[in-house]
Amino acid sequence: MKLNFAKRMSYIKASEIREILKVTEQEDVISFAGGLPAPELFPIDEINEINQIVLKEAGTKALQYTTTEGYAPLREWIANRMNERLGTAFDKDNILITHGSQQGLDLSGKVFLDEGDVVLCESPTYLAAISAFKAYGCSFIEIPTDEDGMMMDVLEEILSNTPHLKLIYAIPTFQNPTGKTWSLERRRKLAELSAKYGVAVIEDNPYGELRFGGESLPSIKSFDEAGNILCTGSFSKIFCPGFRIGWIAGDKDIIRKYVLVKQGTDLQCNTIAQMTIAEYLKRYDIDKHIAKIVEVYRKRRNVAIESIERYFPDTIKFTRPEGGLFTWIELPEGISARDVLVRSLEKKIAFVPGGSFYPNGNKENTLRINYSNMPEDKIEKGLKTLGEVVKEYISQSE
Amino acid sequence: MKLNFAKRMSYIKASEIREILKVTEQEDVISFAGGLPAPELFPIDEINEINQIVLKEAGTKALQYTTTEGYAPLREWIANRMNERLGTAFDKDNILITHGSQQGLDLSGKVFLDEGDVVLCESPTYLAAISAFKAYGCSFIEIPTDEDGMMMDVLEEILSNTPHLKLIYAIPTFQNPTGKTWSLERRRKLAELSAKYGVAVIEDNPYGELRFGGESLPSIKSFDEAGNILCTGSFSKIFCPGFRIGWIAGDKDIIRKYVLVKQGTDLQCNTIAQMTIAEYLKRYDIDKHIAKIVEVYRKRRNVAIESIERYFPDTIKFTRPEGGLFTWIELPEGISARDVLVRSLEKKIAFVPGGSFYPNGNKENTLRINYSNMPEDKIEKGLKTLGEVVKEYISQSE
Repeated sequence: MKLNFAKRMSYIKASEIREILKVTEQEDVISFAGGLPAPELFPIDEINEINQIVLKEAGTKALQYTTTEGYAPLREWIANRMNERLGTAFDKDNILITHGSQQGLDLSGKVFLDEGDVVLCESPTYLAAISAFKAYGCSFIEIPTDEDGMMMDVLEEILSNTPHLKLIYAIPTFQNPTGKTWSLERRRKLAELSAKYGVAVIEDNPYGELRFGGESLPSIKSFDEAGNILCTGSFSKIFCPGFRIGWIAGDKDIIRKYVLVKQGTDLQCNTIAQMTIAEYLKRYDIDKHIAKIVEVYRKRRNVAIESIERYFPDTIKFTRPEGGLFTWIELPEGISARDVLVRSLEKKIAFVPGGSFYPNGNKENTLRINYSNMPEDKIEKGLKTLGEVVKEYISQSE
Repeated sequence: MKLNFAKRMSYIKASEIREILKVTEQEDVISFAGGLPAPELFPIDEINEINQIVLKEAGTKALQYTTTEGYAPLREWIANRMNERLGTAFDKDNILITHGSQQGLDLSGKVFLDEGDVVLCESPTYLAAISAFKAYGCSFIEIPTDEDGMMMDVLEEILSNTPHLKLIYAIPTFQNPTGKTWSLERRRKLAELSAKYGVAVIEDNPYGELRFGGESLPSIKSFDEAGNILCTGSFSKIFCPGFRIGWIAGDKDIIRKYVLVKQGTDLQCNTIAQMTIAEYLKRYDIDKHIAKIVEVYRKRRNVAIESIERYFPDTIKFTRPEGGLFTWIELPEGISARDVLVRSLEKKIAFVPGGSFYPNGNKENTLRINYSNMPEDKIEKGLKTLGEVVKEYISQSE
């Protein structure tokens, strides 16, 4: 007899990005497809030094099981950092260490979602958040966004008349995939609506520390009087992703639920990775390190923006992100980015078509460009070729 | 308005073990409660050396994102090891690296279970497997076991007349919590029944390498002609748990489903931990390292067994495990191990009452004793005191 799988297996699909990334593993492909940080900026020597210290001074502890909640000094640092930067009022018991911020999304699904529940999200939104939540049997309602973030009038209308609403998912700073940042007013308003309608918010913030200019904004959580808002964060983009250390932060009674759920999911995160990061944060100035990353990415962003301006047709629209890893291009209506990808791959240029970032599927005329993981000359060369492909394709479609 | 959580949150409870472990963090408590490996046996110096090599030779790779499937050389090693030791026929594409073997259980729940499905398990079974599966809304039917493993006649009866059966969960070697090992005949029979009734088997094997004597047995998987059996494994007990590196192995089309599900759950496991283990396995003889662990645990097991024989009343039953970390004590009927725990904690002795290991709750007269994480003199001292507490409690209950 054949095996029966869970119903969710019929709608969990391979990540289009991961599939494209496999194609682009060849050396000579210029890929704007990933979301990888620049590896030449990883603090390898410092990690090597600190790893040795941790193993020598506390090797048995670093290699043993630890608590589900995570390493206390690291949780303390995160709480303080968020309080300083994001206007929160956390202590270590507000923080659960997760296996990357991706696990924060998975655990949020587990804590909040039953089959048939509804998640609200920006349109478009982070691809792997869609996968994470979908595994719990939810559907999505996409809320349109403009330059200031989610459209609050549409959001409130949907909040007021949709049953089984459980979660609002938002990436208010340097959003993936669009690179957009929400205004202060929208942040405040979302917190207000979350309280009014009793719906939890997952405020995902993996890129917030990577600001190239402009002014930092307080988190949505900082306006949360009801205790309904959870924040995720990550060391992947400011330190290194290979350690898989992120966190979820929120009110203590909710975080305790996350801890219970994580216990059954994977017991705890990697002990030595947590201790190594905590020790690094004690011995080194991470702000100096982040400034170095920001400087490199700012230049790459600039080259990306200038190249799009120079080499793409005037009929496109695109984002000028103030930080983060991505810009977002809208091609003229009716132009399929998937078709463009087929042609650009022939010229060894890769990117992710935007369609996958819409949970209910539409807007095939969009594409995401990552600029963090490539030297400036390649960015220009790649976008020049891509711009030519786009121009050619558009002219042939007319 | 108040938030609504997922239904599962009403039945996910704190792990009793983790709660007891918190109590026992005081230095002077002798704890048989955990399942922790002996930290003095961790290869700290070797890990320190190899970490440096990995960071120097491949630092940017070791700290970057990698594939969801995991580091290929590590998956190759695991496939070969299983083929040699467990009679399987795997290559690297049969293996997915997981965040400890615990994640293999969680992902199994995600791949197979819908709300209302039924999981069959040994009675008693591993506590955290109950939590992992329960999160997907299943119920459990416990199959009684004897000295040779699950009772196959009862199992077949239930298989033949229970709807929504999806999984059979088994720990056939040095079972947690009982320390028992299944006979060859039962292994073969389970594979046969799994094929006949189209039910997947999760063969959990975190302790199999820690054999003190007797003959190694092939895995249940080695008898699997239908491709229905998945095997989990872990480096936690033979290397160190702090890295959180385990695996799940099975037929390729099923493992591909697990890969999809892991993508949305946490993208991938810690890169440098995978590379460090792979490099260790290349440069060092892990069999020599395992022999060292086995030698220490064998002595501790001996002391534990001798102490139970000497200090406990004749009216109890207990397991003489051929390997692994645990022995299991059955007190006379009507004697509650939870009551015994209250008294033993007063004397600074901790253990886990057996009741939690029964998903449907019964057999309160049982307890689990871990002997891997303590020197021999403490094992004897602790079990002497515990034996006296048990004797006293029984005599007062009469």
